[in-house]
Amino acid sequence: RKTYRIAVIPGDGIGKETVPEGLRVLDAAARRFGFDLQLTHYDWSCETYKRTGRMMPPDGLDRLRESDSIFLGAVGWPDVPDHISLWGLLIPIRRGFDQYVNLRPCRLLPGVRTPLADRRPEDIDFYVVRENTEGEYSSVGGRMFEGTEREFVTQESIFTRQGVDRVLRYAFELAMTRPRRKVTSATKSNGITLTMPYWDERFAAMARNYPEVRTDQYHIDILCAHFVQHPDWFDVVVGSNLFGDILSDLGPAVAGSIGIAPSANINPERRFPSMFEPVHGSAPDIAGKGICNPIGQVWSGAMMLEHLGETAAAQAILRAIEALLAEGGPRTRDMGGQAGTAEVGKALAEAV
Amino acid sequence: RKTYRIAVIPGDGIGKETVPEGLRVLDAAARRFGFDLQLTHYDWSCETYKRTGRMMPPDGLDRLRESDSIFLGAVGWPDVPDHISLWGLLIPIRRGFDQYVNLRPCRLLPGVRTPLADRRPEDIDFYVVRENTEGEYSSVGGRMFEGTEREFVTQESIFTRQGVDRVLRYAFELAMTRPRRKVTSATKSNGITLTMPYWDERFAAMARNYPEVRTDQYHIDILCAHFVQHPDWFDVVVGSNLFGDILSDLGPAVAGSIGIAPSANINPERRFPSMFEPVHGSAPDIAGKGICNPIGQVWSGAMMLEHLGETAAAQAILRAIEALLAEGGPRTRDMGGQAGTAEVGKALAEAV
Ligand SMILES: CC(C)[C@H](C(=O)O)[C@@H](O)C(=O)O
Ligand SMILES: CC(C)[C@H](C(=O)O)[C@@H](O)C(=O)O
Repeated sequence: RKTYRIAVIPGDGIGKETVPEGLRVLDAAARRFGFDLQLTHYDWSCETYKRTGRMMPPDGLDRLRESDSIFLGAVGWPDVPDHISLWGLLIPIRRGFDQYVNLRPCRLLPGVRTPLADRRPEDIDFYVVRENTEGEYSSVGGRMFEGTEREFVTQESIFTRQGVDRVLRYAFELAMTRPRRKVTSATKSNGITLTMPYWDERFAAMARNYPEVRTDQYHIDILCAHFVQHPDWFDVVVGSNLFGDILSDLGPAVAGSIGIAPSANINPERRFPSMFEPVHGSAPDIAGKGICNPIGQVWSGAMMLEHLGETAAAQAILRAIEALLAEGGPRTRDMGGQAGTAEVGKALAEAV
Repeated sequence: RKTYRIAVIPGDGIGKETVPEGLRVLDAAARRFGFDLQLTHYDWSCETYKRTGRMMPPDGLDRLRESDSIFLGAVGWPDVPDHISLWGLLIPIRRGFDQYVNLRPCRLLPGVRTPLADRRPEDIDFYVVRENTEGEYSSVGGRMFEGTEREFVTQESIFTRQGVDRVLRYAFELAMTRPRRKVTSATKSNGITLTMPYWDERFAAMARNYPEVRTDQYHIDILCAHFVQHPDWFDVVVGSNLFGDILSDLGPAVAGSIGIAPSANINPERRFPSMFEPVHGSAPDIAGKGICNPIGQVWSGAMMLEHLGETAAAQAILRAIEALLAEGGPRTRDMGGQAGTAEVGKALAEAV
C-alpha cells in the first residue's frame, strides 16, 4: 500500500475553508483506490506573520522538502502587504523548489455558465503553461532620487536560456500528449524589444525539435482578445511569468468561473515537491462564511494525485466534479447556487 | 475659417485602405461644419524601409512637428521585423512628441454583437488611459553569455514620478468629466514588487487630490477577468504602457470588434502634435482586398476633431457611426456583413 506524504498549508481566508473540502475528497479517493495520504498540517499564514513576524519559520522550506507534494489553499490578507505575505510564503516555495512550470487547465465544463455567448464545452479546452520562477517577477531594481521630482523606480525582467527552454520544452511535451498538438506562444516582441524577441527565438528553436507540433504566436494584447473571441483556437498556451499569470486568470474567467480553476506548480524533474493550489485567492470579502467554492481546491487535489501517479483516482475526482456540475448537483453562490462549501465538498467525496 | 494642418500617414497594409475612408468622412465633416483640413501626405511605411533603409527620413519628426495633428493608419508588415518598423516610426512619434496619454474608448455600440452573453450597450462604456512613453517599453537592458547555456537577457521597466503622475492626473481629470467619476488602477504589485508598488503609491497620492472621484485597483490578472465578467464596473481604467496595451485590446474585444476601436496618442499640453490611429494593426491577411473595417479609423478621426476643438463635428461623426451600426447600415465582414471598406466610408460621409 503506497503512502504519500502531503504538506497541507491552508493559508489565509477561504483557503481555510476550501482545504478541508479538498482533503475530504482526497481522503475518499485514497480509500477507494487503496493508497494512504500522510498529512502534515502547517498553519503558516498572515496570522503567523502577525504573531511571529514571519510567514513561515526560517526552516520552513526544509520541513516541506520531506513531503511528496504540497497542498496549498490561498495566501494573503488585507492587513499584511502582499510583498510580505506572498513573498514570504508562496513565491519562496515556487522558487525554492524550482517549480518552474505553473500549469493551469482552462475548460468549460458541461453545466457551467460561461460569460461568452454561444460557447459550448468543446470550444474551451486548453492549458496555460506559465513560467514560474523568473521573467518579470525579479528582485533586481530599485528606487532613486526618493521623495523628489526626479524620483524613479526600475525593475528588471530577466530571462535565462535555461529558464526559458525548460518551460517551453514542458509545453511542447504536453502538446505531444494531446490530440491537437498545438502550442501557442504569448509574446510582446513588438513593444518589449529586448527580452521578448529572445523568448521568440527560443520558442522557434524549441519548435524545431517537435516537427509534429503546430505552433503559432500572438502578442499578449491581441492574445487576450482572442481568448474572448476565439477560445477554440487554443490547445497549449505558453507564456512568461507575467503573461502566463494574466492568461491563466483570463482563461478560467472565459470558461465560466475562477472558483473552480486549479493549478499545479510543478518541478518536473521531481527533485523537489510540487505544489497544488486553486487559482483563486483568499477572497477576504466572503471568507469565514462557509459559502466559497471548493471545486478549485478539489480539482487541484486531482492534479496532485495525477502528479503522484494515482491517475485513476485523479480521474475519479474529475469525473465527480463534471457530474456534479452537469447534473445540477449543489453549487455555491458564485455559480448561481445556494449551497455551502461543505455541502459541495461532501457531494464530491460521496461521488468519488 | 479655421484651417488645421494634418499630417497623414497611411502606413502599411489596411492602413492604406482605412485612411482614405477616414479622410472622406473628415472632409464631409469639414464641409458641413465650416473648417479646412490642410493635408500633407507621407508614404512612410515598410515599403519606404525596403527602398531606403529607413521607415521615415532622418528629419521625419521635424516635418511632422509643423502639423496640428497626425492621422495614422497602421504600421508593420511581416517581412520587416517589428523592432524596425514600429521602433522606426510609431514609437519614435509617440515618444518624440511626448504623447504620454494613449486614450482608448471601449463602448458597446447599439447594433454591435459582443462575444459576451447578455450584455447591453449601457454595460460597456469606459475609457482605457494608457501611459505611452515609459514603463515596460524601455530600451535599457541587454544580452550576456550569448550563444552559451548561460545566456540571459534583461530589460528594465522604468517608472518616473513625472511619467506616472502626469498620466494618472489625466485619468482623474477625465473621470471628473464623466457622470460616474470613477478611476480603476491596473497594478501587479503582488508579483512585480519594485515598480508596481510605486505605481500604487502615486495612484493613492493622486487620488487625494480628487476627493470626488471614486477609486479602486486590481491586479492585472484579475482585472482582465473582470473585463469579461463585469465590464459594467469600469469607467476610467488607467494602466502602465504594457497593462494599458493589454486592456485596450481586451476592452474592444469585449465590446464586440477591434475593427471599430479608435485611439488617440495625446500630448495634453499641446507642445507637440497628437496622433490618432485605430487600435487594429496592418492586418496582412486581409490587406489589399478592400474588405477591412474603416470605422476604427473614422472614429479616430472624430477623436482628432474633438482634440482640435471641433466638438460638434466630432459628435456628428460619432452619431453617424452609431446610426450606421444601429440601423443596419452596410457593414464589413468582421461585423458579419458583406460591404466593402469604401461602401462603409461613403455611407458614413453621407450621414455626416
Ligand atoms: C504595435 C505595438 C508596438 C503597439 C503597442 O504595443 O504599443 C500596439 O499594440 C498598440 O497598442 O498601439
Ligand atoms: C498572488 C500572486 C503573486 C500570484 C502570482 O501572480 O503569481 C497569483 O496571482 C497567482 O497567479 O498565483
